[in-house]
Amino acid sequence: MPRYKMVISYDGTSYGGWQSQTNSVCIQDVIESALGKILRNTIKVNGSGRTDSGVHALGQVAHFDAEHPIDTTKTCYSLNCLLPKDIRILELTLAEDTFHARYSAVKKIYQYRLHLDTISDPFKRRYALHVLHKLDIEAMKEGAKHLVGTHDFSSFANQQDEGSAGKDAVRTIFRIDFIPEAGGMILEFEGNGFLYKMVRNITGTLLEVGGKKRNPNQIPTILELKDRKAAGKAAEAHGLYLVKVFYS
Amino acid sequence: MPRYKMVISYDGTSYGGWQSQTNSVCIQDVIESALGKILRNTIKVNGSGRTDSGVHALGQVAHFDAEHPIDTTKTCYSLNCLLPKDIRILELTLAEDTFHARYSAVKKIYQYRLHLDTISDPFKRRYALHVLHKLDIEAMKEGAKHLVGTHDFSSFANQQDEGSAGKDAVRTIFRIDFIPEAGGMILEFEGNGFLYKMVRNITGTLLEVGGKKRNPNQIPTILELKDRKAAGKAAEAHGLYLVKVFYS
Repeated sequence: MPRYKMVISYDGTSYGGWQSQTNSVCIQDVIESALGKILRNTIKVNGSGRTDSGVHALGQVAHFDAEHPIDTTKTCYSLNCLLPKDIRILELTLAEDTFHARYSAVKKIYQYRLHLDTISDPFKRRYALHVLHKLDIEAMKEGAKHLVGTHDFSSFANQQDEGSAGKDAVRTIFRIDFIPEAGGMILEFEGNGFLYKMVRNITGTLLEVGGKKRNPNQIPTILELKDRKAAGKAAEAHGLYLVKVFYS
Repeated sequence: MPRYKMVISYDGTSYGGWQSQTNSVCIQDVIESALGKILRNTIKVNGSGRTDSGVHALGQVAHFDAEHPIDTTKTCYSLNCLLPKDIRILELTLAEDTFHARYSAVKKIYQYRLHLDTISDPFKRRYALHVLHKLDIEAMKEGAKHLVGTHDFSSFANQQDEGSAGKDAVRTIFRIDFIPEAGGMILEFEGNGFLYKMVRNITGTLLEVGGKKRNPNQIPTILELKDRKAAGKAAEAHGLYLVKVFYS
């Protein structure tokens, strides 16, 4: 059975996440349903990881197995005709048999987008977190420096399900960049992997640093405590984007 | 009665336009309702002009009269608290008694945003017209040149209501700029006034020129004919933005 790799972009606003645990419609289901119609078979789509309800993707990756070889160009076109306009298949290619969207991933980039203005922008309301008060960006950068490198990120991880409790929480963040843009700031995270809600929990904590509720020097202590309650609140879902997944 | 001027931004997706002629909710009504609650009075809001259902605004202007002087900073803040997030009051200032949002306007800027890519972007689906086929931008610029200046634009005007039939259709377009942006092109129109659907009708006609369905040299003839049927179809509403209204 040939294996195929998809690169997917979606506006997560209307969905219960990539893979839903509730009754809401999830992105994986919508793609599986469209693929099933085109290939006239039940298709199981495996994503590189879950994105939560409201989280967006510019480059989510997933794989699936087809019973017979498919014309990737035609299938990609048909998929985009069938799918709702808030989900687009950007690439569909034949993959190695051993390729796995989740287990073969070696690096991911996430962005958290902040909209910084006294009055919110109607066009950004679903696509960036609006922060009304002034942020001390230098303090946030100072705090972020303590997170770059290899650490146990237990303090910044929510438990996704029973199975993940007590699992290895050591991850490497290669960089956290602060990219200014018109009316806002993008926090870009590159790492070898991210725990459940890790980017949102880090961003929420850095926002507390930026709002002078925490000192950037508290970050090493938060890491050491390995306790979710030591860190700040998760930043809201609608500012988060899965940008790119890398494979070796 | 003191008069006040508002600058308003809105995502037009969910509304039946600035001023609705149907049963749908319109932006003017929503603002009048919020202002009425704050000022405890019936307030009539007058816009610089109507925008159609689905059309967006970055800087619509409107005026209203209040029975008593108001604290503009506080009222602006309260308005933005009451209004849905897809409508924002950017400025609220005291105006001259003689100021009229519509009749005092001397110049307007509109943008029509094109999203040019083989695969559409989920995040632009409501905010730019997706054009799949290749456009001859140079031919469109050539066609646009014939429209700049003072002309009778009857061929590019829909009749908004019975009252507008046979009215003076002479307008001056100061410039039509083609501004490239990532994944697309913005057509920016600056003129002393625009007839009903004029920007969308011009854009639709220029898109036919770009798609080789019309020759750019046909534009002078279309203008001369003063017949709506001579020009192309209106481009869809969701690519259009009222950017700025100027007053002397």
